[in-house]
Amino acid sequence: MAVTSTVPLTSRDDLSLAYTPGVALVCEAIAADPVLARDYTWVGHTVAVVTDGSAVLGLGNIGPRAAMPVMEGKAILFKQFGGVDAVPICLDTQDTEEIIAVVKALAPSFGGINLEDIAAPRCFEIERRLDAELPIPVFHDDQHGTAVVVLAALRNAVRLLGRALGELRVVISGAGAAGVAVTRMLIAGGVDAARIVVCDSKGTLYAGRPDLVSGSEKADLAGLTNRAAIVGGIEAALAGADVLIGVSGGQIAEEAVASLAPGGIVFALANPTPEVHPSIAARYAAVVATGRSDFPNQINNVLAFPGIFRGALEAGAPRITEAMKLAAAEAIAGIVAGDLRADQIVPSPLDPRVAATVAAAVAAAA
Amino acid sequence: MAVTSTVPLTSRDDLSLAYTPGVALVCEAIAADPVLARDYTWVGHTVAVVTDGSAVLGLGNIGPRAAMPVMEGKAILFKQFGGVDAVPICLDTQDTEEIIAVVKALAPSFGGINLEDIAAPRCFEIERRLDAELPIPVFHDDQHGTAVVVLAALRNAVRLLGRALGELRVVISGAGAAGVAVTRMLIAGGVDAARIVVCDSKGTLYAGRPDLVSGSEKADLAGLTNRAAIVGGIEAALAGADVLIGVSGGQIAEEAVASLAPGGIVFALANPTPEVHPSIAARYAAVVATGRSDFPNQINNVLAFPGIFRGALEAGAPRITEAMKLAAAEAIAGIVAGDLRADQIVPSPLDPRVAATVAAAVAAAA
Repeated sequence: MAVTSTVPLTSRDDLSLAYTPGVALVCEAIAADPVLARDYTWVGHTVAVVTDGSAVLGLGNIGPRAAMPVMEGKAILFKQFGGVDAVPICLDTQDTEEIIAVVKALAPSFGGINLEDIAAPRCFEIERRLDAELPIPVFHDDQHGTAVVVLAALRNAVRLLGRALGELRVVISGAGAAGVAVTRMLIAGGVDAARIVVCDSKGTLYAGRPDLVSGSEKADLAGLTNRAAIVGGIEAALAGADVLIGVSGGQIAEEAVASLAPGGIVFALANPTPEVHPSIAARYAAVVATGRSDFPNQINNVLAFPGIFRGALEAGAPRITEAMKLAAAEAIAGIVAGDLRADQIVPSPLDPRVAATVAAAVAAAA
Repeated sequence: MAVTSTVPLTSRDDLSLAYTPGVALVCEAIAADPVLARDYTWVGHTVAVVTDGSAVLGLGNIGPRAAMPVMEGKAILFKQFGGVDAVPICLDTQDTEEIIAVVKALAPSFGGINLEDIAAPRCFEIERRLDAELPIPVFHDDQHGTAVVVLAALRNAVRLLGRALGELRVVISGAGAAGVAVTRMLIAGGVDAARIVVCDSKGTLYAGRPDLVSGSEKADLAGLTNRAAIVGGIEAALAGADVLIGVSGGQIAEEAVASLAPGGIVFALANPTPEVHPSIAARYAAVVATGRSDFPNQINNVLAFPGIFRGALEAGAPRITEAMKLAAAEAIAGIVAGDLRADQIVPSPLDPRVAATVAAAVAAAA
């Protein structure tokens, strides 16, 4: 990547204008009215992509230096699809309070903060605090980017199948950053919380499960979901369910997938190895999606984050609200809603209409 | 400014290579050998330009948001002259320990740290600690950039006048970030410490001055310089001196300048208003320089910092040593050494040879 000037800076006059003495006038104007920084500097169209390197792709806790290539890729996707300038910030700390303090100190330099590849449960507290304490949008993409695209895909799958979100029994395999956010987004989008069952590596979440820490995200979800109090492994949850959403990386046996109700939906989103191979899932489900580019229906965050940040920055939104995320999901779904097929419930990640459409919807919701 | 990709990223194959799944291979390589981050990411050619907004240009403590235009200008100068990618980081804290902690946390994201427009005496402690505790170059440009260019200019002025550095009586008006660094650099470069007198707003620094705090930079300089123990205002210091270097912003009366020894040197570097107007200084000095582009002999940091960082990054230097700064000063002076005139003791800031020449000298010294 490179940082470049968007204006020529080659003559003495250019330098006098863009640097001293001319720059002093711009500084004084912003000192008098800080809102002008949005228009007079790059802050208005720039986000930080912040990681602590603790949960990078499927590679785990590889640290900040090894995380940089992913953050660079993310930054280029921001630019390519959303026209948003993004700066990778890889932090040499994995302490929750330190990360919060550092990002707060950095905030005047950026128009928004995209948190990336930070392990759960630390990511929840970091995002909650920064969202509350900073006047600019903060968005943990592994949570909400995934959740927005999953909701968009599920809406279109339901439309295609002539079903309704509120009637579905949904199993979510994985209770990390993505699993928690997907569950909350689906509820906000119209899925009945009582009919959702979330599973972690130890089995279904249910109210009163002895190992759940009171006040934790998992305990909250257990209280909110699984009204039938299904206790057991993923197999117990899947029997007769309509939807399986895998965001865990753990493999799910064919027999368990086979126990889904007929005509259902499987999103197996682990990368690079889906929880169940799509060709197997297709034997038991009417609509199948993965996170991979080499199968149909790629559920990829790039459908969401460039447009969400572009819309939030254009609107000068101080935060990214649930209404903005729901608007983003509806916008993504809407792009292919007129031409739904079992192998096209979401647009292609390379579809150039997506970010602009999402940005407009998000800005309007803001 | 903009962040751009230096490789095309438009097709599904491009994305698979630069982002998932291809990027995972790069991450794993760096996790196995962190030094590879220099070659495999932008870290090897990128610096952070870090400020707390406490001493911006001559505008003072205008805060991080209003400081951003200066940091952007600086970033573009880095790129334009040194080919170094630079990211402005404006911090929402002016606490010494917090600034140190934040910059240390940011360090894996950058190949070097350029500190900028941080007020004295805080800037000394911040630089000293970061230089000691980080494995990458840390450079407070207001101190050392200025000092390197002043030394380069003084060497050439002395050559032109047939004098020797060690015989000069030098008065430095200003004991802030620039004044302290200029004094130390001149001593390292061959000026006799005993024959330097540093003045702050209260007058000359001398050993035992009652208001000096033991262990402070000013107290250290007082012990090192002014062996004649001149006590009084700038007027007392200037009487019979050979060189006046103004880095204070305070005005100096013509009568005081008139008391310089004949055939001397005046660098009046305050911007936009020099301590003494160059046309007045020229009545009493053989060589006159300012910080302004509209007079001859512009002493501008841009002669130093792009090449110094480029050289340090190319050499993989863990810090910027005194030898590297002396090499930079010699390289800057050398560019015009063959064609010295009273109105050409330094190259033009736009001279494209400067950064490459400085970088080569700095890398060799590293």
